[in-house]
Amino acid sequence: MKGVILSVNPDARIVDITHEIPPHDIAGAAFTLSVACRSFPAQTIHLSVVDPGVGSARRPILVMAGEQFFVGPDNGIFSYVIEGAARAHVVHLTNPKYFQHPVSDTFHGRDIFAPVAGALSNGVTAAELGTEIDDYVRLEPLAPDKLGKGKLGARIIHIDRFGNCITNLTKEVLTPEMIRDGAQLTLNGKTIKAFRRFFSDKGDNDQMLFAVWGSAGFLEVAATNRSAAKLLKARRGQRVLVSTY
Amino acid sequence: MKGVILSVNPDARIVDITHEIPPHDIAGAAFTLSVACRSFPAQTIHLSVVDPGVGSARRPILVMAGEQFFVGPDNGIFSYVIEGAARAHVVHLTNPKYFQHPVSDTFHGRDIFAPVAGALSNGVTAAELGTEIDDYVRLEPLAPDKLGKGKLGARIIHIDRFGNCITNLTKEVLTPEMIRDGAQLTLNGKTIKAFRRFFSDKGDNDQMLFAVWGSAGFLEVAATNRSAAKLLKARRGQRVLVSTY
Amino acid sequence: MKGVILSVNPDARIVDITHEIPPHDIAGAAFTLSVACRSFPAQTIHLSVVDPGVGSARRPILVMAGEQFFVGPDNGIFSYVIEGAARAHVVHLTNPKYFQHPVSDTFHGRDIFAPVAGALSNGVTAAELGTEIDDYVRLEPLAPDKLGKGKLGARIIHIDRFGNCITNLTKEVLTPEMIRDGAQLTLNGKTIKAFRRFFSDKGDNDQMLFAVWGSAGFLEVAATNRSAAKLLKARRGQRVLVSTY
Repeated sequence: MKGVILSVNPDARIVDITHEIPPHDIAGAAFTLSVACRSFPAQTIHLSVVDPGVGSARRPILVMAGEQFFVGPDNGIFSYVIEGAARAHVVHLTNPKYFQHPVSDTFHGRDIFAPVAGALSNGVTAAELGTEIDDYVRLEPLAPDKLGKGKLGARIIHIDRFGNCITNLTKEVLTPEMIRDGAQLTLNGKTIKAFRRFFSDKGDNDQMLFAVWGSAGFLEVAATNRSAAKLLKARRGQRVLVSTY
Repeated sequence: MKGVILSVNPDARIVDITHEIPPHDIAGAAFTLSVACRSFPAQTIHLSVVDPGVGSARRPILVMAGEQFFVGPDNGIFSYVIEGAARAHVVHLTNPKYFQHPVSDTFHGRDIFAPVAGALSNGVTAAELGTEIDDYVRLEPLAPDKLGKGKLGARIIHIDRFGNCITNLTKEVLTPEMIRDGAQLTLNGKTIKAFRRFFSDKGDNDQMLFAVWGSAGFLEVAATNRSAAKLLKARRGQRVLVSTY
Repeated sequence: MKGVILSVNPDARIVDITHEIPPHDIAGAAFTLSVACRSFPAQTIHLSVVDPGVGSARRPILVMAGEQFFVGPDNGIFSYVIEGAARAHVVHLTNPKYFQHPVSDTFHGRDIFAPVAGALSNGVTAAELGTEIDDYVRLEPLAPDKLGKGKLGARIIHIDRFGNCITNLTKEVLTPEMIRDGAQLTLNGKTIKAFRRFFSDKGDNDQMLFAVWGSAGFLEVAATNRSAAKLLKARRGQRVLVSTY
């Protein structure tokens, strides 16, 4: 993919974000991308390929959101970017002029997404690349379910390399008042009551598992110098109940 | 190595292809490089170091093939690049003027290959770097063995991070006619009869294991949303028999 | 972090050294950085974040040593760089003008270190960024303990991806004379007597485990085509005794 981009635009500047998204983990890629893209300048072109449906009827798309471009498969990978943007336009990439031929059935990253990203960096416009659509694939929204007074049905949206379990809880839904009133998290039969300011904070007790507001604005379940995911046998997608004790 | 290149040529543009070749896996590196280099522009300088023989009599070489340059150890790592090129020239790197001194016995990537790659990017010519040779190390050729009518002795040349097992079978040896006539693959006591167009293709049956033409032009053994390598307990180098049922 | 740097200085050239330091392994990062930085040009800005204490009173610092810059947490990560430099200046980063706001409690890499590195690349001076300190955190020095005639108390300072165990022994303390006189290494009940020139050297015997001078100038315990760390059940930090047989 990098070779194709540089063949289309020798002056393109390529920056790796990550190559460690687990195979087929579309939601994990969607989360990572939606967080990472916030720190990049306007006009950045993001190329994202987690693409188990390559070769099928799954469409190739371009998303324009927050003054940035996103190129990849229409499988939900850009859902959270779109959910977080004030406005988004999605274009079905239909113009084969900007593909690399022959287009294989198994690697659109190289044959469609990379050459289109290169073309965009050369100034080709969205109108030249395809036609706008609004029936693109959407993942389940990030927002947790409200289950009644003081109760929230949340989930783990990502587990990072330290084993921290990142939930979909933000300060908008899990408010400071709820935490002050005794909010607790339950998953896999374990209860987490300790809220800390940062990872090495000793807090008020010596509980090994604790909750902390992560740098992406989501609540994380962490453990002192250990993997919370291992301690909890937690998996991505798993439900987390918020209640009051 | 990157620091050395930038010390020799501050304007060099460095692009990572992969750092995930297993230790000592020369054939895996040879395969990955021969596929990846096809997408890069002419004049690209490829620096490839899988080098278990560093410090021994193993020679440092430069390969010129397909309008690109390849710098690394003479241990077969460039075999498939040379096998796939119409013409190739191989130069034994003998001119210490372009090495970084003292040359260690354990890291020629830093002390020989990186400074030579930097010198090439500055316009130093092959003739200044050493002398042409033709007795360079060659790996077993990629082509499968022909075992008689409808039978081929193939092998697994690479297992990718998804667990797909990439064989050395191309459409030239495993022809559409053979597949239409009922070709099947056998390895580790398991038989694969299903051929699919792409990874998420449901095909004609619900067999978990199937064969698919990969993006590099080689037949791959894959499994629906799982690692075929794990299902088959397959290892790189392992034999795969093609026969007709 | 890369997005922040490019937002501050769109012309910054970013080079990845490694993303494979184990979580919380400050000494491993300190070692890797002190070795890698030697090959980079003067004026390179190194951004290093292994930061379990993020959010606590742990200070953010800039180190100037060997005509290079180092930005990261004051937790010892720059200890070996400073130990190896003729002179070093350390600045406590106190000027919030060069931070990205709001500064989170959990990711100073993005909010402090990356924008400061970007500012440095734009020509902002150390004096503008903070105030010089000399009570920065120091790790245990690299030098081994001298235990008496012919005896040294060394330790494993890093285990690389091949399983080679890199000790803190240099040729200054483990001299050619000591090796000639029969120096041996002992760890975990195993004794290593074989010294080789390079990894594939067969040496005088067929012992699987052997010692070799690594490219960074430290003695490594290695095994022929295998992981010495696995064979020895070795861990980073573990003691290694040098004695004479």
